[in-house]
Amino acid sequence: MQLDNAAINALEKRYRAALINSVTGFKPANVVGTADSEGNSNLAIISSVFHLGSQPPLIGMIIRPSPVERHTLDNVLDTGSYTINHVASSFIEAAHQTAARYPRQQSEFVATGLTELYVDGVHAPFVAEANIRLGMALREHHPLAINGTHMVIGEIQWLDIPDACVAEDGSIDLAAAETVALSGLDSYHSTQRVARMAYAKPDLPPKKLDQ
Amino acid sequence: MQLDNAAINALEKRYRAALINSVTGFKPANVVGTADSEGNSNLAIISSVFHLGSQPPLIGMIIRPSPVERHTLDNVLDTGSYTINHVASSFIEAAHQTAARYPRQQSEFVATGLTELYVDGVHAPFVAEANIRLGMALREHHPLAINGTHMVIGEIQWLDIPDACVAEDGSIDLAAAETVALSGLDSYHSTQRVARMAYAKPDLPPKKLDQ
Repeated sequence: MQLDNAAINALEKRYRAALINSVTGFKPANVVGTADSEGNSNLAIISSVFHLGSQPPLIGMIIRPSPVERHTLDNVLDTGSYTINHVASSFIEAAHQTAARYPRQQSEFVATGLTELYVDGVHAPFVAEANIRLGMALREHHPLAINGTHMVIGEIQWLDIPDACVAEDGSIDLAAAETVALSGLDSYHSTQRVARMAYAKPDLPPKKLDQ
Repeated sequence: MQLDNAAINALEKRYRAALINSVTGFKPANVVGTADSEGNSNLAIISSVFHLGSQPPLIGMIIRPSPVERHTLDNVLDTGSYTINHVASSFIEAAHQTAARYPRQQSEFVATGLTELYVDGVHAPFVAEANIRLGMALREHHPLAINGTHMVIGEIQWLDIPDACVAEDGSIDLAAAETVALSGLDSYHSTQRVARMAYAKPDLPPKKLDQ
């Protein structure tokens, strides 16, 4: 299939959304936990979390202006706090269900059966079922005029990762953590590591590391 | 392992980079092709490509201020053109090698053995070995003062996907396309779809679709 820009824009809306949501490759599957200033919790699956930097430890994410994600954004802006929780293979169905348009006053934790977990110093709720959990503090909010989305930049305040999934060099074995990858709008994937590569240098050929 | 912000910042630099590059979950593995105004080509692996919107079809990516990625950014800003090519399992080693610090005048295509492919109307070179290829036009450039990185937003001008990998609803079977997922700085993963979920609605329980 070869399409130019005009052909893409002429596609039927749902077909185009499925296609264009797939073309960037695999996406991280995370559920983002928040609570309003009165402590009413919210949970939303977000597939646009990206690494921004390690020092300081910064993470970006894109929030869409849909009613569902708007609840998350409002809570982030009101409280400065959110959590990022890796979707594991054990709770794909509940994680996906957080994308439904529940009314603001209904917690997706209650609706989907996922369990709130609180940590001292972090206002927003974590997901107890997740194996890898990050507590975030809002650093910057960039509304993107080009299409009405919002970029949120946060700094990691707290992280929790199973010891057995952290290698000696600090890298995390995400397959061992049962973290899943997302493609498009609705496809969840398990993974298998096929190669770990040595640090690339111009004067050396590519080299696989022992895994 | 539980770490707060101070403990993260106190980690040894390489350990911290490996850890924090892993904590967002799986990342898309793409090589980004560019050429300067004289046609000298450049290719760099970028793990921070993200979906921004379907109408218009917009994609974002983060470029770091390293010498390698700086060549890419300069070409994008000078010509307004770049390509995003999915890393397939058949060329992981060559794709990873594009991260080496080759001098500006040396093309990573030549250095790694990957093949330039040109399409009418797109200045930047595609990667012939890739199964899924996107031609992009620069729309916005946001330098991010918080850590010196750059967000680049582009619109899809042209895309090429094997027909056999596109489902009736427009979603792409990335596993069939042999697209790999990246974790951390250097771990490449093959994938297997474990669930495809129906559109989530508040009044219906989560439902798996036939795959």
